[in-house]
Amino acid sequence: MNCVGCRLANEQENVYVVYETATLTCILDYMPFNPGHVLILPKGHAGEVEELDPKTAIDIMEASRFLSKAVNAAFNPDGITIIQNGGVFNDLDHYHMHVIPRFEGQDFAEFFSEEGEPEDEAVLAQAAGELIRIIKEMEHHARV
Amino acid sequence: MNCVGCRLANEQENVYVVYETATLTCILDYMPFNPGHVLILPKGHAGEVEELDPKTAIDIMEASRFLSKAVNAAFNPDGITIIQNGGVFNDLDHYHMHVIPRFEGQDFAEFFSEEGEPEDEAVLAQAAGELIRIIKEMEHHARV
Repeated sequence: MNCVGCRLANEQENVYVVYETATLTCILDYMPFNPGHVLILPKGHAGEVEELDPKTAIDIMEASRFLSKAVNAAFNPDGITIIQNGGVFNDLDHYHMHVIPRFEGQDFAEFFSEEGEPEDEAVLAQAAGELIRIIKEMEHHARV
Repeated sequence: MNCVGCRLANEQENVYVVYETATLTCILDYMPFNPGHVLILPKGHAGEVEELDPKTAIDIMEASRFLSKAVNAAFNPDGITIIQNGGVFNDLDHYHMHVIPRFEGQDFAEFFSEEGEPEDEAVLAQAAGELIRIIKEMEHHARV
């Protein structure tokens, strides 16, 4: 697989998977805007939103709703921004939707600057742990 | 209706409607980042993505895919960014998804600045006309 997004979605890179469905892998962004910044990636390759098959598109919307609840429960942000960049602004060449917790007073414009450093592994691991714990609780409550 | 988003979605304000479904109204943003910047609004009130009923959520995803095709055909941008701001970052207090054509060299961070002037009516009317023409063609081709 030459596509980075395909490798991330199929766990052929080191990733923190926080949620998964038949069609999607949801992982932590390794340069998060805040802890709990998640990427939703289709397992099958699609570049643009128009190229998604209808089932995967629906799954992405549902995953974004589920993850918004989980991120709110885990990190209590002032709001969540959901973003998907297409065309030349898609830096993975593979469809991915960001679910980003935000807090008042932060300059969100920084999300669109090119610069940034990968987050410390320990910080990512802690965020993943908190989010996975909440998601397991939500899945448990949905089943009972 | 005290909710601005409800009034926009139900055409109780002056809006340029470019596309409509049973559950959604899609209108031009009156302070567009570029011509063809569209807002997808549910007709029924919902504040957050988690509050959408599942059918409306699916309709929003499908509308975003359809409108991306239409905006690409009408305005030929370098890419499209799809954004939805929740919580305190939702400036309408009513769920709305932005579909925004973008061009290389533009500073997209400006989208997140508070300042801006409403676009000239003539510019909005022209953008609406182009987009509606393309959408009618797409709907015609989908039917035949």
